[in-house]
Amino acid sequence: MKDIDPPEMAKRLWLNDKILSVMEKYGFQMVEPTSIENLETLEAKSGPQIRDEIYFFADKSGRNLGLRFDLTVGMTRMIANRFDLSEPIKIGALSGMWRYDEPQFARYRHFYQWDAEIYGTSEQEADAEVIALAMDILENVGLRDYEVRISNRKFTEGFLRRIGITDGQQIENAIRAIDKYRKTSPKEFENEFLKIGIAEDIFRKISETISLNGTADQILSKIPQEYLKNEMSAKGHAELSKLFDLLEGLGKSRKSILDLSIVRGIGYYDGIVFEAYDKGGEDVGAIFGGGRYDKLCGLYGKREIPATGVAGGIERLMISLERASLFPNLSQSPKAFAAAIDEQSRRRILAFVAELREKGLSCDFDMKKRSLKKQLEYADSMKIPVVIILGPKELEKGMIRIRSMKDHTEVEVRTSDLVKEVTRKLQ
Amino acid sequence: MKDIDPPEMAKRLWLNDKILSVMEKYGFQMVEPTSIENLETLEAKSGPQIRDEIYFFADKSGRNLGLRFDLTVGMTRMIANRFDLSEPIKIGALSGMWRYDEPQFARYRHFYQWDAEIYGTSEQEADAEVIALAMDILENVGLRDYEVRISNRKFTEGFLRRIGITDGQQIENAIRAIDKYRKTSPKEFENEFLKIGIAEDIFRKISETISLNGTADQILSKIPQEYLKNEMSAKGHAELSKLFDLLEGLGKSRKSILDLSIVRGIGYYDGIVFEAYDKGGEDVGAIFGGGRYDKLCGLYGKREIPATGVAGGIERLMISLERASLFPNLSQSPKAFAAAIDEQSRRRILAFVAELREKGLSCDFDMKKRSLKKQLEYADSMKIPVVIILGPKELEKGMIRIRSMKDHTEVEVRTSDLVKEVTRKLQ
Repeated sequence: MKDIDPPEMAKRLWLNDKILSVMEKYGFQMVEPTSIENLETLEAKSGPQIRDEIYFFADKSGRNLGLRFDLTVGMTRMIANRFDLSEPIKIGALSGMWRYDEPQFARYRHFYQWDAEIYGTSEQEADAEVIALAMDILENVGLRDYEVRISNRKFTEGFLRRIGITDGQQIENAIRAIDKYRKTSPKEFENEFLKIGIAEDIFRKISETISLNGTADQILSKIPQEYLKNEMSAKGHAELSKLFDLLEGLGKSRKSILDLSIVRGIGYYDGIVFEAYDKGGEDVGAIFGGGRYDKLCGLYGKREIPATGVAGGIERLMISLERASLFPNLSQSPKAFAAAIDEQSRRRILAFVAELREKGLSCDFDMKKRSLKKQLEYADSMKIPVVIILGPKELEKGMIRIRSMKDHTEVEVRTSDLVKEVTRKLQ
Repeated sequence: MKDIDPPEMAKRLWLNDKILSVMEKYGFQMVEPTSIENLETLEAKSGPQIRDEIYFFADKSGRNLGLRFDLTVGMTRMIANRFDLSEPIKIGALSGMWRYDEPQFARYRHFYQWDAEIYGTSEQEADAEVIALAMDILENVGLRDYEVRISNRKFTEGFLRRIGITDGQQIENAIRAIDKYRKTSPKEFENEFLKIGIAEDIFRKISETISLNGTADQILSKIPQEYLKNEMSAKGHAELSKLFDLLEGLGKSRKSILDLSIVRGIGYYDGIVFEAYDKGGEDVGAIFGGGRYDKLCGLYGKREIPATGVAGGIERLMISLERASLFPNLSQSPKAFAAAIDEQSRRRILAFVAELREKGLSCDFDMKKRSLKKQLEYADSMKIPVVIILGPKELEKGMIRIRSMKDHTEVEVRTSDLVKEVTRKLQ
């Protein structure tokens, strides 16, 4: 666990604003699901093995509880029994979550994600919408050199069935192995399939197919017709074709590719799946990912609601932005510091502090009864650009001094001109 | 535990912005201490009895951990061993925390607070600063009918010693009893003191003194000189006098009163203490509170650092704002909805959706292949004020229709004028 210090917090607050403004432009309404869930809610999605990866405990009345490990579970539970809302329901969240991972690069035990979900429609319009939203979030924070890799779990499953893998468990194993495509060496990758008893000729077909990636136009036609004779894979193929057409309509096709190796590790996806990578540093992992999960709502509510969504990690995004020097200067220093010379002016300067703040200018003042020299040193160490100075001489004349810390110039102005003159110095 | 739905979240996001902008004007830099602390860190401040009030558990490697119950502990731990920062250190936070309370009115098991702390100075300037900040937070969210009640623990302790309560434990008991002054009936209040063995004549003196409240001018002179013959009470009295003078300097004296019944329940306060109440509804409890705690840093670090701070509950503030109808209209509905009539226009309208968003106008579109009538009904149910409509006729002419949902008027405009015309309709 780690604390967030001021320079990091300033970056996070800047990012939050940028993300929320895109959520708003797309019409997603923000929510926050509870941080502590019943353990069984957390297990419903991923099975009891999730306990190895989360913080869970019994409360004083013996209920089994756990800290949320993502936002999708809670958002889905929130929606599952709401029969009063017009569909589609577009909600977003931006909050922290906890996982009992071994800490490693770009993975933390407490981390933040933004998340956007659409409930109540199985049309590809919704998949295109969450992908477009996610791309605009990256664009809006300044990250332009990325790629969204898109595939479809219906296609993958239908294709696997077509080439002879028909057992449900074996399909799941194969999908989990495919998920390792980019994360392992070719030899290790092949071993993943041998381990689960997939014959070499079948592995060759899988390997050949999932290595296909490029623009939708290039790839959709390259997939052997043979593989589309399964109803599921044909449906997945059609969904992909439709999705890419919609992304083009939304002006989002240029950075989207079809990549048949994308499956997403988690079990519940059942349609479009996608992951985005920062081309300047894939080692941080996907900077967003998501897909369609039409069956999950049924686990938490009285009905199935088709759903699709996307989530991205704040910490990974921060690493990408740091590397590309994309954060603006986010000084949290106040704009002005009020320095007083004696007891009387220390008391009288407070009115000017209040006046500057009242007018929207951030201002600090001495709280340690320091000499003027020490006050100026403090203002300098805090990178405060302007210091206003009041002493007995100024008080007598109804004047106040304004010092620019950059060039050490000073002007003496009427106290009634203070706000105007400080504003001018700051320009 | 409870979820935060869109209408509530919109209010929270609005409040957060308002609070952060005041923090910035006062030069507080935002941080977030870790949500999970070592149990011993949480116990350092309040003793092992804190376990009854918090969520704690052992992690998989057997470490005792707990969820933070406030922000002050973490912020103080963050600062305690930072020898590199210029003092005073002004930091703020706005985050959630957990307490294992029985849920009751205006108290929740997971709740949010804003918190501002100043480390590194024992001057009353810092106490005045956190009180002024807190008052400006209330002013900035529109809550104007409140009162800040201020006292000083040095005065209280010195006064108790002077009237004959000299045992440390007995002083602590008496302070805890005084804390119940406004929360119990006069009879119950008296019983609190009898229970801890305080004689009736001493109770009379306590009761008389703590019932003093009013402007500092009125009250400071009313305190019997006799009670100021103790060094501590005299110091407390002088600190209060200084503080009120500084508050006046900052323009914050009008809503501040001296109230000798204010002690704050928690043990570690040792100087100025204060609580603010919404005069429109004191039943929610203090809407902010705080004080000086010069000894706490020593528990977490290698040195003692004088400190003072303030915190306020978001949920209580929300109740006060609700009651006084002070929240503005915080619609999260998009400004425009794009309705298409046939397959071709469904595809073509996406470019206009993207254009509106690009220009900063929030926009949604149909994701359920609905008829125009149903699309308009949906836009209406979502309270979206403007609908743009595209069909084969409009496509042929290079035009698009703009419908105002309020008065059902429609205009047909050139597609190149879309953004301009939608903006006009929204005015």
